[in-house]
Amino acid sequence: MPSFPNLDELSVRTTRRSQLVDIGPKVQALVKAKGVEEGVVHLWSMHTTCALTVNENADPDVATDMVWKMDTLVPRDEASYRHAEGNSDSHVKTSLFGPGLTLLVSSGRLVLGRWQGVYLAEWDGPRTRTVCIRTVAEPGTGP
Amino acid sequence: MPSFPNLDELSVRTTRRSQLVDIGPKVQALVKAKGVEEGVVHLWSMHTTCALTVNENADPDVATDMVWKMDTLVPRDEASYRHAEGNSDSHVKTSLFGPGLTLLVSSGRLVLGRWQGVYLAEWDGPRTRTVCIRTVAEPGTGP
Amino acid sequence: MPSFPNLDELSVRTTRRSQLVDIGPKVQALVKAKGVEEGVVHLWSMHTTCALTVNENADPDVATDMVWKMDTLVPRDEASYRHAEGNSDSHVKTSLFGPGLTLLVSSGRLVLGRWQGVYLAEWDGPRTRTVCIRTVAEPGTGP
Repeated sequence: MPSFPNLDELSVRTTRRSQLVDIGPKVQALVKAKGVEEGVVHLWSMHTTCALTVNENADPDVATDMVWKMDTLVPRDEASYRHAEGNSDSHVKTSLFGPGLTLLVSSGRLVLGRWQGVYLAEWDGPRTRTVCIRTVAEPGTGP
Repeated sequence: MPSFPNLDELSVRTTRRSQLVDIGPKVQALVKAKGVEEGVVHLWSMHTTCALTVNENADPDVATDMVWKMDTLVPRDEASYRHAEGNSDSHVKTSLFGPGLTLLVSSGRLVLGRWQGVYLAEWDGPRTRTVCIRTVAEPGTGP
Repeated sequence: MPSFPNLDELSVRTTRRSQLVDIGPKVQALVKAKGVEEGVVHLWSMHTTCALTVNENADPDVATDMVWKMDTLVPRDEASYRHAEGNSDSHVKTSLFGPGLTLLVSSGRLVLGRWQGVYLAEWDGPRTRTVCIRTVAEPGTGP
């Protein structure tokens, strides 16, 4: 049962500590199911150690390189971290990529460039993550 | 007197150069006062050296660690900076976290995960900051 | 001919590999042309190697410093990158700044602070970039 009866939710299972998981097809399917032709879709991660982003989904090496760079820039272990859970890096990465996305919808489709995919950016997995979604139709365009 | 008569504004006083200030309760109170049950709330920082983000507000060590890491990654003094005010680092951090947030509202409450708090991220304080806010009710749900 | 008949588009020509290009006046002109007095404007970059951000547009040294710092933090060449195109850094910078912006509109104007300008952040230029735009009027405020 969803926590918010007036929102949609995606459940996303991640398999590694740091990972970009393509959720674009699920978001597109949801937009189609809602019947929204023109509008926007607001995505929100309910967590403090994973983010949402859009980036290339053609060559999987891009996601690999992005994760490597983020883990190098903000490494897991640093002597100055105080937070006892040992995932302060995950919190930093989450604010760097950001917890939410507003995507455009036109002619019933997500407005994405040729190479753009929608990703959940896992920074402290593996876990099961929840993304809350509000789809807003342009007034006068139904449904 | 607010600068924009059709928007709401929060004034936020910061006390350190780099600091995460929890503004969640103020945003929630505003949403309640507006009477919006279902919709979104758009937050916008009017500044170029502070940002908005969402991250953990349970253990205060997380915010401390995040600020430490950002100040280490983007230090205040670097020989190559040209900008005479000496706050180029603050500008970089602001674009890294981002100047705006779109939060979901459902059943009259901000849609936030158990550990999520809404923060103004001060990168060049102490100062008094202004956040402009537009609350948008889902069509047909009032008020 | 625009790819999305129900959206507006900006075409932005960049001239360097890394560069902040001020698109604020074009966005403001579009908002005015749409006749939206109260609402929001959603901007979306259709690319995976350029982003959108808001930062200072008074002293051009700020943009210079920001670009320098980002290119230093996420350099072009790193031995661990696998992606054959040699622009993995551009992809990382794009997710760090983010591909979209939601700006507030009030009294027919973009709601921006005194020093804020709207930038396309080019991370793999020079190229011609497309920004898709949906302007949403507050219900009841026309047009």
